[in-house]
Amino acid sequence: MSELTIWTYDWVPEGPRGFVRDLRLRWACEEAGLGYAVRTVPFDGRETNHLARQPFGQVPFLDDGGLELFESGACLLHLAGKSETLAPSDPVGAAQTQQWTIAALNSIEMVTVPWWFLKLCGDEDNQLTGWMGQRLAHIERVLGEREWLAAGRFTVADLLMADVLRVTDVRAFGNRPATEAYVARMTERPSFRKARADQMALFEAADGKR
Amino acid sequence: MSELTIWTYDWVPEGPRGFVRDLRLRWACEEAGLGYAVRTVPFDGRETNHLARQPFGQVPFLDDGGLELFESGACLLHLAGKSETLAPSDPVGAAQTQQWTIAALNSIEMVTVPWWFLKLCGDEDNQLTGWMGQRLAHIERVLGEREWLAAGRFTVADLLMADVLRVTDVRAFGNRPATEAYVARMTERPSFRKARADQMALFEAADGKR
Repeated sequence: MSELTIWTYDWVPEGPRGFVRDLRLRWACEEAGLGYAVRTVPFDGRETNHLARQPFGQVPFLDDGGLELFESGACLLHLAGKSETLAPSDPVGAAQTQQWTIAALNSIEMVTVPWWFLKLCGDEDNQLTGWMGQRLAHIERVLGEREWLAAGRFTVADLLMADVLRVTDVRAFGNRPATEAYVARMTERPSFRKARADQMALFEAADGKR
Repeated sequence: MSELTIWTYDWVPEGPRGFVRDLRLRWACEEAGLGYAVRTVPFDGRETNHLARQPFGQVPFLDDGGLELFESGACLLHLAGKSETLAPSDPVGAAQTQQWTIAALNSIEMVTVPWWFLKLCGDEDNQLTGWMGQRLAHIERVLGEREWLAAGRFTVADLLMADVLRVTDVRAFGNRPATEAYVARMTERPSFRKARADQMALFEAADGKR
């Protein structure tokens, strides 16, 4: 019996399919060969129907035996503690993995998600565009100098950073060859492809039940 | 000799004084009684003059013996590993601390900082206002039900969440008594007051040298 359960929505519209953040956790489990089950909460009424498990009404959340966690970044760091495949266990390597995981969340995604939100509202040339271009230039410089973000090897920090960057049309902010090559390299990994295909299949199967 | 060195700017304008994020690290060290030195990098030219140490040209960053870290959230989690005062060391308590630290960074600050940025650009009633109100309502509900975010005790997650929320004019988004009481409770702590006073004093002293 699998002790790891990843919780996601039972259905989402076509737009977010392939991008719902349970994908990050599926991908990590696939990389590490960790067995896991996927269970769902209703998408309809999502602002209020699982607040006891996820205080912002979002997915994913994770069960590991009795331990319940939310925040995809925190779940990734927790999974990283279960497998050397996801992060080195030595203190320096673990600290660097944690640092770049948080950089993906707080220095890149803190700009890319609000920018995308403003774009969705119809404001593509919005006031976050300059900030976005700056941050993407910084990460381009970093990725031009190295293959992996932390500890000279694949970690959950790469998984997360690539997932954050693949949503972003980086080319719209200038020529970013290192970033594009990094995202391509990461999303060609079989574990990403399986995680994405499994998420797509779940939501497509749910179409028939609605 | 102190092994911990917190790096910040040598000077900032009056507006950000008391809010520069080295305060988070000072506060944590004060709470835990960890000795630390403060060193500075030039504020002028900050986009490019310390990229080798902080790839986004920001502060703070931390030296711990030979270990160099950036991202205030990652530095806080690193400091938490050095003192039971900052986070419980049992796996469940540590995971909850990590979870709420990341929630502060990725579920609250990801909205509050871009909202504030748009306000600075002169757009106070901006398109992130609805999202902001939702997130603040969720955290109000959480803080109405408990004194501390993680593990039933003070942790770096509270330190960080309070620092994120104190910047936000939560009252502008509705009546938020639990959030206001939480921020007041946290910022009355002697360690916060000392950290803030020390940061203010550093920047004020630098005025005379310019």
